[in-house]
Order: sequence, then structure tokens, then C-alpha cells
Amino acid sequence: MAELKSRRVILKDYVEGYPTEDHMELLPAADVDEAAAAEEGSVLVKNLCLSCDPYMRPKMARPQEQWYTEAYVPGTTITGFGVAQVVRSSLPGLAAGDLVSGVTGWEDYSVIKPPFAGQLTKIRPEDGLPLSYYTGVLGMPGFTAYVGFHRICAPKAGETVFVSAASGAVGQLVGQFARLMGCYVVGSAGSKEKVDLLINKFGFHDAFNYKEEGGDLAGALRARNLVYLISKRIRMQGFVEPDHKHLYPEYRAWVVPHIKDGKVVYVEDVVEGLDAAPGALIGLFHGRNVGKQVVRLANPQ
Amino acid sequence: MAELKSRRVILKDYVEGYPTEDHMELLPAADVDEAAAAEEGSVLVKNLCLSCDPYMRPKMARPQEQWYTEAYVPGTTITGFGVAQVVRSSLPGLAAGDLVSGVTGWEDYSVIKPPFAGQLTKIRPEDGLPLSYYTGVLGMPGFTAYVGFHRICAPKAGETVFVSAASGAVGQLVGQFARLMGCYVVGSAGSKEKVDLLINKFGFHDAFNYKEEGGDLAGALRARNLVYLISKRIRMQGFVEPDHKHLYPEYRAWVVPHIKDGKVVYVEDVVEGLDAAPGALIGLFHGRNVGKQVVRLANPQ
Repeated sequence: MAELKSRRVILKDYVEGYPTEDHMELLPAADVDEAAAAEEGSVLVKNLCLSCDPYMRPKMARPQEQWYTEAYVPGTTITGFGVAQVVRSSLPGLAAGDLVSGVTGWEDYSVIKPPFAGQLTKIRPEDGLPLSYYTGVLGMPGFTAYVGFHRICAPKAGETVFVSAASGAVGQLVGQFARLMGCYVVGSAGSKEKVDLLINKFGFHDAFNYKEEGGDLAGALRARNLVYLISKRIRMQGFVEPDHKHLYPEYRAWVVPHIKDGKVVYVEDVVEGLDAAPGALIGLFHGRNVGKQVVRLANPQ
Repeated sequence: MAELKSRRVILKDYVEGYPTEDHMELLPAADVDEAAAAEEGSVLVKNLCLSCDPYMRPKMARPQEQWYTEAYVPGTTITGFGVAQVVRSSLPGLAAGDLVSGVTGWEDYSVIKPPFAGQLTKIRPEDGLPLSYYTGVLGMPGFTAYVGFHRICAPKAGETVFVSAASGAVGQLVGQFARLMGCYVVGSAGSKEKVDLLINKFGFHDAFNYKEEGGDLAGALRARNLVYLISKRIRMQGFVEPDHKHLYPEYRAWVVPHIKDGKVVYVEDVVEGLDAAPGALIGLFHGRNVGKQVVRLANPQ
């Protein structure tokens, strides 16, 4: 095997406010530490697809104890969900050529060490679904939609479901899950293109562009403050999907047939190449993506 | 029977911000419309005890559709929970001399018409508990504490329960219910006297005066904003006790023995006389009350 070289994207400094191109840097190709991949329990993978997700923003901030994921360290490679192909494995159960999903680095090749290597999930080739789906509808966003809708919110058929950020990685699925359940589904998004998508692609019953509602919506939101939780008997509930991971097999068994039947569709916004990754992540926080934001690096061999 | 005369407290004008003495007026004694009490389904009562409750503040505001109770009408008598004795009844099931609790007027005598007369609850003399308790631990605040703690919050033994406004009509009971369940109970209140009460009277395990926490607490509260619902898996849930009224018999059967055994105590802040009622209600919104705020008008005959 020729010596492998890998570019990588690092966080340059902690972010306050919105991240910009100045906060990240694509470093030129350097030798991959293949010896590290030979250590017991480690895996060397070629990254095929990277995921841009909102939770990455708080990880770019100066560490604070309140958040639920660890902060990135300036000078080191950004990590996130991705799909990769195993190049060399010192981990039982994974072999060269296997496709995996899980947490990887924003780089061409990653050496994934224990215990993280053991947390990679082997992708079953019999699914026949796009590999990027394992960062979306079959990954964290999809499972978040499932747990949040079916387990936390748990509405009944006939009830009205409102989804904000409704064309995004999670929202588009919540809307479709709600429609499948027989709810009346209303969504909001930030452009006419996205609102059209909600109605015409995802089957929302109604949708609006929150940027065009102007003073009325802003006024309504100002007036509708927390005290109305009482009179409107509202429940607000936070959750993170890893707490519910025992339900993932149930979700997978439920959603894969729906995807194959076309009853659940998934819209992705795919950019090409590692050099486009920082811009794609930045765009996410300005709503520039239409659907789940993905970065495609390579095809499987 | 000598002709009855009754004073009454009216709302003079809608309130913005805190209510003041200028917003209410005690009108001098005028003849009671006893003929009205002779109408089918109506009851004439002598009011013995009136309750001052926080929900009365939004009722004093200009009507808005968002709230869950109807606004008071300027120029008319303020209404609220109270305990009263029947003087004359044209309602089957109630007779002169009976003690009742329910919604009554801030006046010496009230004529309560259908359908409200039918919503009065006859007080069982065998309870042997102070009549004012029927506006507190056995009334709306007590049932709110029960539903909120046991049905909405529903913690497990050994968990930590934090109660704000912990010496108030509802909070003091939530703390005691939590202790009975085997929770570790922490409360906050707005004076040293109240904090002492939490520890020494209600058996809270720990308590603090939120006014003395100074910049640290304010800073912590500013930093702990809504986004932390996600990472801390917090559920915020609004409710109003009338939605759960089918549980009231269960609550009553549970709490009365606890009160009689001394396992649940109830601290009231009692002022004497209808003329003291506006000031007592105003004081409630500045935390001047220590325990459940009650106005005593008369003893039963």
C-alpha cells in the first residue's frame, strides 16, 4: 500500500457568536500515522461522508460545564458523525472494506482508537440506501426525530403538530412521522423554497415562512411568554437521543421499510470535498442548507 | 330576621403592574338583595373566610384571551375562594347553618346563583379542621400541590426536589409531600423568617433566602437559560388543578389523616376583617405573607 496522506480541518480558536471561515483551517496533506492503526482495538478508516450538525456549534465554544458534549480543542481536528470505509483494522469484527458509521474526524483518513473504534456501527450492505443516510435519517437526526416525536411528544392521531426548522435534518422527519400518524402538520422555515418543500415534498398540511410573518409573529412570540405554560397546560421537554439508544433497533426496523416504500423521504444538501466542509457547517447556522447538510468526500471502493 | 346589610370590595379599575389600594374600594354597608336568594337554586351565605391567591392578579388585568380565568369587571365585587355559612337556601342539599366552601364574593353576605351555587362544597363537620383550611390545604392550593407534585412532577424516593416560593400556600405543602415521599427537599423563600420556617416547621432538608444570594444566583439564572432544557433533559410543564378534579377525593382521603397525625402542617397568615382584605391581597405580590394568606371575616354561628 502506498503511504497514505490526509488533509484535515482544525478548529483554530474558540467561537463566540457565529462561526466563520477564520475559526477553521484546512491543513495540507500530511502522512497518516498508520502505525497507530496497528494498535490493538484501533481502526484506520477512509472518510466518505461527513455530517454538519447544530450540536457542533456549542462544541466550538470555550468549555462550560453546562453542555452535554465536550468542547473541541483549538489546534485539533474537528470531529463529527460520518460514514467511512475501513482501510486497516486491529479491532475484531471489523475488516478492511467494511463500511461504518459513527464519530470520525474531518479529514481524509482517520485513525480511530479505543474506546471510540468500538462505537463504530457496521453498515449492513443489504439496506441498499445512500451511505449519507447513516448521518441523517438513519443516524442521530433521524433517531432524534423518532425519540422526540414518538416518545417525548407522543401526540395522538388527529392532533395538530407544529414543527419549527421544519425542512432541516430533524424537522423534515418529524413532519412526516406526524403525517403518518394521522396528525395535522404545520411547519415553519426560513425561505419560500423551504416552505414549498414542506408542502410538496414532505406532505405538511400547512407551512409558513417565519421571516415573512413580520411584526405579527414577533409580537405574538413576545406576548406568548413562559407564564402561558400554565394556562395553556404546555409541556416543554428537553432530551438528547443517546439516553434512548436502546430504542434504535425499533426505530431502524420501523423506518427502513418506510424509506424503501417512499412513505418517508429524506432531502439532503450535499457539498463535495473536505475544503467545502467549513463553509457548509457555517451555512447551517444561517439556514443556507436545504435539508440535511452533508459533505461528501469519496465513494466507497 | 333583621334586614341584612353587607359591605363589599370592588375592583375600581384594571391593574397594570402591581395592584395598589387605589385599585380596590370597600363600599359601605348596603341592603342585601334577599329576594334574589329566594330564587330556585340560589343560596344566601354569610362569608366567614376569604382567600388571597396569586391567580387573582391576572384577573385584575384588562381581559386577554390567553389566560384561563375570566377577568374581573371594574365596579363589581371581587370574587375568590372562601368559606361561608348558609343563611337561606333555595338549593336542594343545602340548608341554613350549613358550612360551605367555594367561590364567593369579597363581601359580608353573598347571594350565590346557579350554576355557581351548585358548585359550593358542603364542609363535613366531622373533619374538625380549621375552616380556613378549606381555602388552603383542603382547597385549591393544597390540591394544586398534590396534582403538581404527585401527578405532574412525580419524582421517586431519593430524588432531590427544589421548591421555589417554598413557604407559600402551595410550596409549603409540596415540600412536605416530597419529604413524606423520601425525597431530599430544598426550598427558597424571600426572608430569614421564611427560611427558618422551611427548615424548622416544614422539615425541608435545606433552604436559602434568594434575596441574599446576590450576584451569584442572578448570574446563574441568567446563564441557565432555556437552551439548557436540552442538555439537562428538563421538563417544564404547566397545569391547572381543575383539569384533575376527579382526583380530589383521593387527595382528601390521603391528606386529612396526615393533617390529623401532624405529619402535614399548614401555616396561615390570617388578617382580620373585610377592610384588611385589599391590603392582604396586595401584600401577597410583595411576599409580605408568611404562609397561606387568609382574611377572616366572622365565626360560624
